[in-house]
Amino acid sequence: MNVFAFILKYLRKTKFMAAVILAALIFRCIAERGQIYAMSQVIGYLPKYTEDHAVLAQIVLFIGLLAAMLLLDAAAAYVWRYTAGKFTPYFCSLVYKDIFVQVHHHSIRFFNEEMAGKIASKTKNIVSGIKEIYGQIVFGVIRPLGGLIITMILICSADFELGFIIFLLNIMYLLIMVYIRKRIGSFAEKRARFGAETDGVFIDTVTNSDLVKSFANYFYEKKHFYNVLRTAVKAEQTERTKDAWFDFEGKICFAATYLASCLAVFYYWYLQKISFADVVMATSLLNGIMFDVINIGFFVSEFSQSYGQVKDG
Amino acid sequence: MNVFAFILKYLRKTKFMAAVILAALIFRCIAERGQIYAMSQVIGYLPKYTEDHAVLAQIVLFIGLLAAMLLLDAAAAYVWRYTAGKFTPYFCSLVYKDIFVQVHHHSIRFFNEEMAGKIASKTKNIVSGIKEIYGQIVFGVIRPLGGLIITMILICSADFELGFIIFLLNIMYLLIMVYIRKRIGSFAEKRARFGAETDGVFIDTVTNSDLVKSFANYFYEKKHFYNVLRTAVKAEQTERTKDAWFDFEGKICFAATYLASCLAVFYYWYLQKISFADVVMATSLLNGIMFDVINIGFFVSEFSQSYGQVKDG
Repeated sequence: MNVFAFILKYLRKTKFMAAVILAALIFRCIAERGQIYAMSQVIGYLPKYTEDHAVLAQIVLFIGLLAAMLLLDAAAAYVWRYTAGKFTPYFCSLVYKDIFVQVHHHSIRFFNEEMAGKIASKTKNIVSGIKEIYGQIVFGVIRPLGGLIITMILICSADFELGFIIFLLNIMYLLIMVYIRKRIGSFAEKRARFGAETDGVFIDTVTNSDLVKSFANYFYEKKHFYNVLRTAVKAEQTERTKDAWFDFEGKICFAATYLASCLAVFYYWYLQKISFADVVMATSLLNGIMFDVINIGFFVSEFSQSYGQVKDG
Repeated sequence: MNVFAFILKYLRKTKFMAAVILAALIFRCIAERGQIYAMSQVIGYLPKYTEDHAVLAQIVLFIGLLAAMLLLDAAAAYVWRYTAGKFTPYFCSLVYKDIFVQVHHHSIRFFNEEMAGKIASKTKNIVSGIKEIYGQIVFGVIRPLGGLIITMILICSADFELGFIIFLLNIMYLLIMVYIRKRIGSFAEKRARFGAETDGVFIDTVTNSDLVKSFANYFYEKKHFYNVLRTAVKAEQTERTKDAWFDFEGKICFAATYLASCLAVFYYWYLQKISFADVVMATSLLNGIMFDVINIGFFVSEFSQSYGQVKDG
């Protein structure tokens, strides 16, 4: 069964709440970038103030805008979290109920053998998979994409060419980040497998400890446990040190993209194509864009996992 | 047994790695704040450049500093993550081994009855509790405290009085955040309890589905499951909507503290006590301080939980 069709079926029953959540998230994106915009305008006007005191009205205006944006952010965040707090548990309960009815429509024979445990764990996977997909759509798509679009509008309104250059730099950064993230998967899998094995051996020796003691097997069991534990420790160490290296590569790319973007901004200011306030705005926005790009990269590399979880269930 | 003494005992065996981690974390704090400092100096010198082209050397110098700080951050992050990737699994394995030996020193009779399951789950709690404490010490103490101290040094070096005012504002903010966070606990507990109950009922009806069918109990069971599910949904909704409200309160406090700090910075610039570059630096650092304060607040309200987990185990 197609996962999107499955989710859409339930979304139709809850479309009002879903629309409120989407609207609140968009307002948050606007409010967050609006804060940076207002603040950069204040900073940008300050040097002018030393020459021309009439600018004070402008500064006060932008401080007011900053306060309004902070309030809008708080209000939109409240509406979002409140509605999501009502929405996701209700949405999951709809799915849970349908699964209950579907499962119990099967014949008695269907439940015999070890099916029961499988059904229970699959159901759990579907419900938690849906919550994960919700989180990924919110934090991996709506927020970073909304943020990226608003940032691009702000920078392009200062200078279109500069906006385009920064956009291209970030697309390159995104592609590199997705490539870097993809390589970690197999190590994480190994770590999880060996970790589970260690816990299993420990539990076994405890539950069968009378056997371990009675047959003087203690030293053998101890050696066995230590061996399994060592393999698990090595697998976790390998995963985490590899992860550290990929993170280092990512940070170097971040530094290169950030510096190149900053230099582009300074160069356009030097050409007198953008004002000083725009320089403050663009450089303040740069960090934000790059985190949006990182989040989209995360989404690309993690969505397939949750999708598989719901589909298999 | 005292948890700190317990952890210290193992720390003594791994003190070299622990020292490397601490040093790398401190370098990261310096590099992160150094980036903001370098960037603010560049922005601060730009308006001067229009009058005096000799300032270019200074601007290039600070861009170089920015690049160096970005590199230092990447390198320190790598050293930290690499060492922590070797350290935490090894540290946990030392604890795991000692528990294994201790458990098996008990007499056979000790293991009979339901002790085995309890020992296994307690051991799991201790090991995962230690990892949590490590995370909390890193993200709740070392990083925010290090960041706060470096930020305060930077702002105080611009103007001591201003630094003191911002420090006081943030202490107030911290106290309010801790107070707000404390109220969410009981709701989270309720949600977890009802959620587990729902899963339990679902699994019961599946495993005993032959009974459910044979005795025509299906409608009774369905009603029962729906009721339990409704209670769980309500508990989760209550927790999350309350959480949304506390978050709103927190955001309003954030806005008030942030605006008050910004106004203080502008006022000190107006009094000509700080330079324009200092204004850019202080306002850029403000967001960072407040997130450090939030993280310390999280630590205060969550540490007791992990501490209890290791102590009970």
